[in-house]
Amino acid sequence: MADAEAFVALTPETLPTKLGGLDVLKTRIGSDPSAWRVREVGDGNLNLVFIVEGPAGAVIVKQALPYVRLVGESWPLPLKRSYFEYNALIRQADRDPGMVPEVFHFDRAQAIVVMEFLNPHIILRQALIKGEILPKIGKDLGRFAARTLFRGSDLSMSARARKEDLALFADNVELCDITENLVFSDPYFEAELNRHTSPQLDGLVAELRADRDLKVEAQALKHLFVAKAETLLHGDLHTGSIMVTKDDTKVIDPEFAFYGPMALDVGMMLSNFWMSYFSQRGHEESGSRDEMRPFLIGVIDEIWETFVAEFSHLWRTERTGILYQRALFEDRGDTLGAEQALARVLGDIWTDMLGFAGIEMHRRILGLAHNADFETIADLDLRGSCEAAALKFGRHLAVNRRSITSLSALAGLAERLDRGDIQ
Amino acid sequence: MADAEAFVALTPETLPTKLGGLDVLKTRIGSDPSAWRVREVGDGNLNLVFIVEGPAGAVIVKQALPYVRLVGESWPLPLKRSYFEYNALIRQADRDPGMVPEVFHFDRAQAIVVMEFLNPHIILRQALIKGEILPKIGKDLGRFAARTLFRGSDLSMSARARKEDLALFADNVELCDITENLVFSDPYFEAELNRHTSPQLDGLVAELRADRDLKVEAQALKHLFVAKAETLLHGDLHTGSIMVTKDDTKVIDPEFAFYGPMALDVGMMLSNFWMSYFSQRGHEESGSRDEMRPFLIGVIDEIWETFVAEFSHLWRTERTGILYQRALFEDRGDTLGAEQALARVLGDIWTDMLGFAGIEMHRRILGLAHNADFETIADLDLRGSCEAAALKFGRHLAVNRRSITSLSALAGLAERLDRGDIQ
Repeated sequence: MADAEAFVALTPETLPTKLGGLDVLKTRIGSDPSAWRVREVGDGNLNLVFIVEGPAGAVIVKQALPYVRLVGESWPLPLKRSYFEYNALIRQADRDPGMVPEVFHFDRAQAIVVMEFLNPHIILRQALIKGEILPKIGKDLGRFAARTLFRGSDLSMSARARKEDLALFADNVELCDITENLVFSDPYFEAELNRHTSPQLDGLVAELRADRDLKVEAQALKHLFVAKAETLLHGDLHTGSIMVTKDDTKVIDPEFAFYGPMALDVGMMLSNFWMSYFSQRGHEESGSRDEMRPFLIGVIDEIWETFVAEFSHLWRTERTGILYQRALFEDRGDTLGAEQALARVLGDIWTDMLGFAGIEMHRRILGLAHNADFETIADLDLRGSCEAAALKFGRHLAVNRRSITSLSALAGLAERLDRGDIQ
Repeated sequence: MADAEAFVALTPETLPTKLGGLDVLKTRIGSDPSAWRVREVGDGNLNLVFIVEGPAGAVIVKQALPYVRLVGESWPLPLKRSYFEYNALIRQADRDPGMVPEVFHFDRAQAIVVMEFLNPHIILRQALIKGEILPKIGKDLGRFAARTLFRGSDLSMSARARKEDLALFADNVELCDITENLVFSDPYFEAELNRHTSPQLDGLVAELRADRDLKVEAQALKHLFVAKAETLLHGDLHTGSIMVTKDDTKVIDPEFAFYGPMALDVGMMLSNFWMSYFSQRGHEESGSRDEMRPFLIGVIDEIWETFVAEFSHLWRTERTGILYQRALFEDRGDTLGAEQALARVLGDIWTDMLGFAGIEMHRRILGLAHNADFETIADLDLRGSCEAAALKFGRHLAVNRRSITSLSALAGLAERLDRGDIQ
């Protein structure tokens, strides 16, 4: 193998030399790489992230490492995740323009993606912890989900293109493995990597791990996750994978991208807003959160309603794939048949979305990767109380998803759990 | 490209020269290829099939052609389907030993599979048309379905191995495309390749093509077919893909193999036995079929009961994959939880199996590829009457699959439709 192919992790010192020859970067940062300012700012679990600034502007350089950064070299993780991230980013940019950072350069051997520096954006989760109201977020995210999920499926793509893409992303085994274990299984038994707020949650955790219906649902949802290869998912669409200003929303970090069920991305999003809701009580020392709670419930409604409206619009105007062909419905004068099929597809997404939302709440409180929403609540009794309400709500979603019909009923349940009106 | 790589269709004259150098064939046929006797016997729609005999024995040489044999060069079909057939055969041989012909040699460039010559086996469909009782068939087929479907899924395989296999078979685009169009869509509108017994069925066909609930179900089943990548299917498991003697059953021709829903293989099998049932009335001039009808209903029961028993056995003894892990159930003393999950998985297969069975009946009577069961009934009024009963039964299965709970109730319905007691 040529030296040029050997992977070398970048440092702030070496980055200008390594990437300084790229015209696309000189144009965007400045023509003299020795004048570039480089800061490593990666605060995630997996990768190196550099901000590179110069007289002409700034870019992000994201480089995968051959192991999990959070854990170290003892947990190897292949560099190819960068290839999946790149492929997902360019597809998402095509399917919902303006909603993901623009990619300027990709180096597969070095696992480097150079992309747009989002400024003054902050991570959505941080904004919600601070109590910020974001007026556009529900519409932006609902539309993003509808457009990427619809346009990446057999409702829209050619069968050949979709199957080729399925095969490409089927190689993202290691990141799917993380989800398969950490989201769907570990939280429901005494797995080594688990942790939870203890002793505050010990009783409830034991109860959940003895809950047969919950475990069967979690595994049925895992079955859906691995087997329903319906569309190209973001795969990790929580509030830490979204950057915001009051006026702009960007979705980042799609390295978990793979072909899976539409309901996963939607459910994970709603789940993280519900978790934000249940965490607000832990952040009131910096001021009342009485405006945040209805805002968050409103965002959940708006994401779902926008998703349904946009998905339905695409169904009626862009249904050019092999599924639910117009030849059988509209072209025979049976537009109501197409609407009946749409209602059924959306109904399935609704039911499964609730399940994924419930499971996501459990893994963020019982598994390895916790949420800053709860983790930043210093008082462990208060944190445990917020988390307990979320756990119970998540159990309700997962087990009763087939009989739940209304987001406003869920909002009422969340409110009573949050207040302690019901245990 | 070297000449050796260019595809050349075999003929009975060239075959001994082309394959005579292979030790594995000399051992099985005879050491002097010039003494081999070669007959081309392909009666299927797609391929060349040769029986090659000599003093030491006989083999089958199956070669794909770069087009659909039935239609001609105007319908190209890639040679790589031979690669998928080979890969499916060796996996099935591993998963249910003895149930598929043994493979002796595979040549990817020439699209040739050399395999066991099954003798004195005949095609199951022909045996059923002749009115033969086959005592082992139900158990053999039920077990084959359970073993291949379970052992090719995330219930059994490692996640990595299954995803690699998924990617391999995702390239079988063209044969999936045939199923996607000819099975799930064409029968339900006036597609060019369709034909049906006319004018006898004209009224019923118009009624079915105007049946909104049926069309939506057919498309929902197509959605399952393309998106539920659960296990390696045979993909074309009808009674023309099965060879039998009284004592032996072999499954052949898995070139449609791909990752899809477990219920498809099971449903297609049962459907073809139901079609045989509805066709018996058309074959009574050669003698009463009063023994065949209960035999066929018994086979349908036995396939399903054996499938459930064997699948349940494997669930309890070989569930080593990432789905429904023992760590969450048996290892925590919750064996009932594992049984609850099994009941749910089997329940889903049941419901979807009925749907696929119904659709398969429609496409065999309304689409391009008809069944000899009906086609060999010369009297068109009689044929149409048999087909009409099957079409109505198929519609019942597809549309009411969620509320059907019993095979014996279905047997009763089939009997009344067959007798003309109900229209």
